[in-house]
Amino acid sequence: MFSIDLADDAQLFPLEVWHAEEFLAHIDRGREFIGQFIGFPDRATDLESARQLLRSNAEKAAADGRRLYGIRAGGTLVGGVLFADFDAAAGNCEVGCWMEPAGTGRGLVTKACRVLIDWAFDVRGMHRAEWHVAGGNEKSIAVARRLGFTREGVLRQSHLHRGVRQDIEVWSLLADEWAAARTA
Amino acid sequence: MFSIDLADDAQLFPLEVWHAEEFLAHIDRGREFIGQFIGFPDRATDLESARQLLRSNAEKAAADGRRLYGIRAGGTLVGGVLFADFDAAAGNCEVGCWMEPAGTGRGLVTKACRVLIDWAFDVRGMHRAEWHVAGGNEKSIAVARRLGFTREGVLRQSHLHRGVRQDIEVWSLLADEWAAARTA
Amino acid sequence: MFSIDLADDAQLFPLEVWHAEEFLAHIDRGREFIGQFIGFPDRATDLESARQLLRSNAEKAAADGRRLYGIRAGGTLVGGVLFADFDAAAGNCEVGCWMEPAGTGRGLVTKACRVLIDWAFDVRGMHRAEWHVAGGNEKSIAVARRLGFTREGVLRQSHLHRGVRQDIEVWSLLADEWAAARTA
Amino acid sequence: MFSIDLADDAQLFPLEVWHAEEFLAHIDRGREFIGQFIGFPDRATDLESARQLLRSNAEKAAADGRRLYGIRAGGTLVGGVLFADFDAAAGNCEVGCWMEPAGTGRGLVTKACRVLIDWAFDVRGMHRAEWHVAGGNEKSIAVARRLGFTREGVLRQSHLHRGVRQDIEVWSLLADEWAAARTA
Amino acid sequence: MFSIDLADDAQLFPLEVWHAEEFLAHIDRGREFIGQFIGFPDRATDLESARQLLRSNAEKAAADGRRLYGIRAGGTLVGGVLFADFDAAAGNCEVGCWMEPAGTGRGLVTKACRVLIDWAFDVRGMHRAEWHVAGGNEKSIAVARRLGFTREGVLRQSHLHRGVRQDIEVWSLLADEWAAARTA
Amino acid sequence: MFSIDLADDAQLFPLEVWHAEEFLAHIDRGREFIGQFIGFPDRATDLESARQLLRSNAEKAAADGRRLYGIRAGGTLVGGVLFADFDAAAGNCEVGCWMEPAGTGRGLVTKACRVLIDWAFDVRGMHRAEWHVAGGNEKSIAVARRLGFTREGVLRQSHLHRGVRQDIEVWSLLADEWAAARTA
Repeated sequence: MFSIDLADDAQLFPLEVWHAEEFLAHIDRGREFIGQFIGFPDRATDLESARQLLRSNAEKAAADGRRLYGIRAGGTLVGGVLFADFDAAAGNCEVGCWMEPAGTGRGLVTKACRVLIDWAFDVRGMHRAEWHVAGGNEKSIAVARRLGFTREGVLRQSHLHRGVRQDIEVWSLLADEWAAARTA
Repeated sequence: MFSIDLADDAQLFPLEVWHAEEFLAHIDRGREFIGQFIGFPDRATDLESARQLLRSNAEKAAADGRRLYGIRAGGTLVGGVLFADFDAAAGNCEVGCWMEPAGTGRGLVTKACRVLIDWAFDVRGMHRAEWHVAGGNEKSIAVARRLGFTREGVLRQSHLHRGVRQDIEVWSLLADEWAAARTA
Repeated sequence: MFSIDLADDAQLFPLEVWHAEEFLAHIDRGREFIGQFIGFPDRATDLESARQLLRSNAEKAAADGRRLYGIRAGGTLVGGVLFADFDAAAGNCEVGCWMEPAGTGRGLVTKACRVLIDWAFDVRGMHRAEWHVAGGNEKSIAVARRLGFTREGVLRQSHLHRGVRQDIEVWSLLADEWAAARTA
Repeated sequence: MFSIDLADDAQLFPLEVWHAEEFLAHIDRGREFIGQFIGFPDRATDLESARQLLRSNAEKAAADGRRLYGIRAGGTLVGGVLFADFDAAAGNCEVGCWMEPAGTGRGLVTKACRVLIDWAFDVRGMHRAEWHVAGGNEKSIAVARRLGFTREGVLRQSHLHRGVRQDIEVWSLLADEWAAARTA
Repeated sequence: MFSIDLADDAQLFPLEVWHAEEFLAHIDRGREFIGQFIGFPDRATDLESARQLLRSNAEKAAADGRRLYGIRAGGTLVGGVLFADFDAAAGNCEVGCWMEPAGTGRGLVTKACRVLIDWAFDVRGMHRAEWHVAGGNEKSIAVARRLGFTREGVLRQSHLHRGVRQDIEVWSLLADEWAAARTA
Repeated sequence: MFSIDLADDAQLFPLEVWHAEEFLAHIDRGREFIGQFIGFPDRATDLESARQLLRSNAEKAAADGRRLYGIRAGGTLVGGVLFADFDAAAGNCEVGCWMEPAGTGRGLVTKACRVLIDWAFDVRGMHRAEWHVAGGNEKSIAVARRLGFTREGVLRQSHLHRGVRQDIEVWSLLADEWAAARTA
């Protein structure tokens, strides 16, 4: 019902359990590409597991926690952004993204993340946003840099993905940094 | 984060658990007026009970069931509409509304209900929407009539509200009736 | 352990989880006939699903809600009656029935419903009982009429059963109507 | 709704959550007497705790486990019998009783226990029934003896009741013993 | 991480969910021997059921209830002892054991039980420990006798194991008996 | 029942729900000192909340997750170490500590952490251990350094403690680093 225009033909919207078929079709198209760094493709392998993934995320959103948002381009779900973690009491959240090839190269993720970060800092009064990214994921690192995140450190060999231990970079953005960047 | 404009200064948005303070302030203002026919004011009497009401509704929404939407006018929450029931498998839903005095007389509820019904029939493929209303609630009956609902019957003395048994009228709208009305 | 005689060789009794085998055999015999209007045959298809159906009903009964009662004729379970809904706080309940062919034509359902309605109104102080019936279910409509229920309206195309949308008639009986009918 | 006559003016019936007020009044009358050996009076001290006690028992009954039955004499709840434990898969159950002074001396408990034991052995195919009784509870021991139970042993100082450790006698009755006694 | 030496090459340790593979291998070796009197071999038949068994026991231990302890000899899990029941509020517990053939004949179970009983009586202030044993399980009866337990009675045909009803002997040990035996 | 000697008069042991009184007395003694950087003193303020804290930790331990261990010196609980997080599937854990003044200055925490890390890497096959510490907590930083952890970064203003946002340093230790340090 609700959406925000990211571009003429691209929208951001809350991803809910009834989107399971659309979500699965999207994951099927991007399974190889997305799966390089993101766990979704290994968890959503059929309609039932896709529904389960969306359902468990929706339950967290209902408790004001983790939230998923889809991005449609030309009417097709091509990726999304998320609050991988959202802890209102602590004032901390973690932002992330995923995208199938057809959705890349247009700045949609960056625009979508701006919407999330604006909401987190301005509407919800959060203090700090994190961005976790595997060391080799250049596209994602570029988004973090573009959004003004600061690299805080590397969690060495901390993420086991498809049998390989990846280094995870932690980047962060503080509320006052975000405010300063906008007025600059 | 998401909203739909109902008028120049009025928006429809998903009502979530973190709106508890805003929701309580709204209910406090409209407690007497809303409480004539609606149970919310008797259930949301302080911040904790307001949060609990929103939380239990959000859990149902997460399971693709009951959903609450707020309406802001001039930046103030003045009422809302809801799917009192939403059963995708059965193809049936029930639409409803509530409003504090400051929000009435501008057609906001009717506009908001159109958004919900469009979504239910066009996006979600529902077959039938119901509208339940106490016999004496003329404002609500007028909305149902305006939206094209048909009166199907009266559930005699079926709703116990503040010690009095009210007759409840059941009105309904079918998907093809909604489609026909738009093309008329 | 407990039962009420409905006739020389017919008894009404609480249907519990340990009756699963007997219940399944009954549903197997009446699967086609009962399944015309009632959902039980599509839900209880083997011993495990029969047990699950009885178990979930028993949990509601334990919370003073929905309750199932079986009817045996000549020692065989041939059907039953139920409180499809029982809300003591609201003073409302819904009564219903189902029967395999071997149990029909003897007035057992009507007698059993009288027992339930007496209990609901006299012992439990309920205010209103409903009877929901598909438009074409003449046998069930006849029972409602015989018991003194009043037809309140028709919920158009509201019940999806085996791919077809049925109209559902809502009938009701109020406590004082029941009392008046007995003293008449 | 259901009951079994134990005498002209005495009935056995399933004790359910909606009997909470009647149950509490009974416990209030018999608090001192019943509390000598039985824990109910210390657990059901007001309406909420009485309801909670009945509710948790009803949930076990719904799962084919522990079950409570009340005994009314002259229309007043004066005590009851129970399956303190009921394990259909193992074929074992434990029978017990409690009574306020007004209900004693008429053999109501013995008659009620016969109903339970008949049902357990004949209808449910149980193999063994136990009777647990504090060493000094002569009335309860007399019931066990009258019903044909055999004393199997004494669990020394095993039951902590109101700060005192009581010896608990275990008595049992096997299905074939019960059958033989009836044909004797 | 933690263990207690029972002998030069034998240790007692808390058995936890992550021991599932080791536990299953042990049960596989002792399946026939242990299964004569103990239910574990029939419940732990593959890795998933072994893990489930250990998990459900660990949840009880977390609530200060039932607890499992393994015994390793020469680095191999050969059996264990348990609090089959542990009720701190009541002051009662039940001790038990199981062993594959390779672990028998060395007094490991008796030593391990001494550790448990010392802890129950001295550290936790328990009042009474029980030992339940099938009538023909001479090895287990010998352990109970060696530990100073007293035979209190026989629960006739009370334990259904692999289709046969076994008599269960109940033995017990009181805290002051244990204290006296040590000072004797 | 189980413990490991850290020194002549100091032991490490699993902290369980039945230690609630001892734990609360310890927290009461160290409330001011421990509370500078650790949340326990604000959560365990009476016996019920202490029990609840230990119970919720025990439930995680039962699922092979977070685990608490106490340290006694001279028979008194003076602090402890913990796996703040333990994810066997991912191969990652987080180690931490807390101590009242009476327990400091003897190297007990360092010794206890060695026990935990040995177990995590050698017995459980973990790959990486983290150490999270507030920027100003020099004592805790010294422990991390002594154990061979490497500082990976600073999570700026990420921890809200008693109204102040603390920087959190993340340190880590990899399994092969631990192995190399021992053989050095």
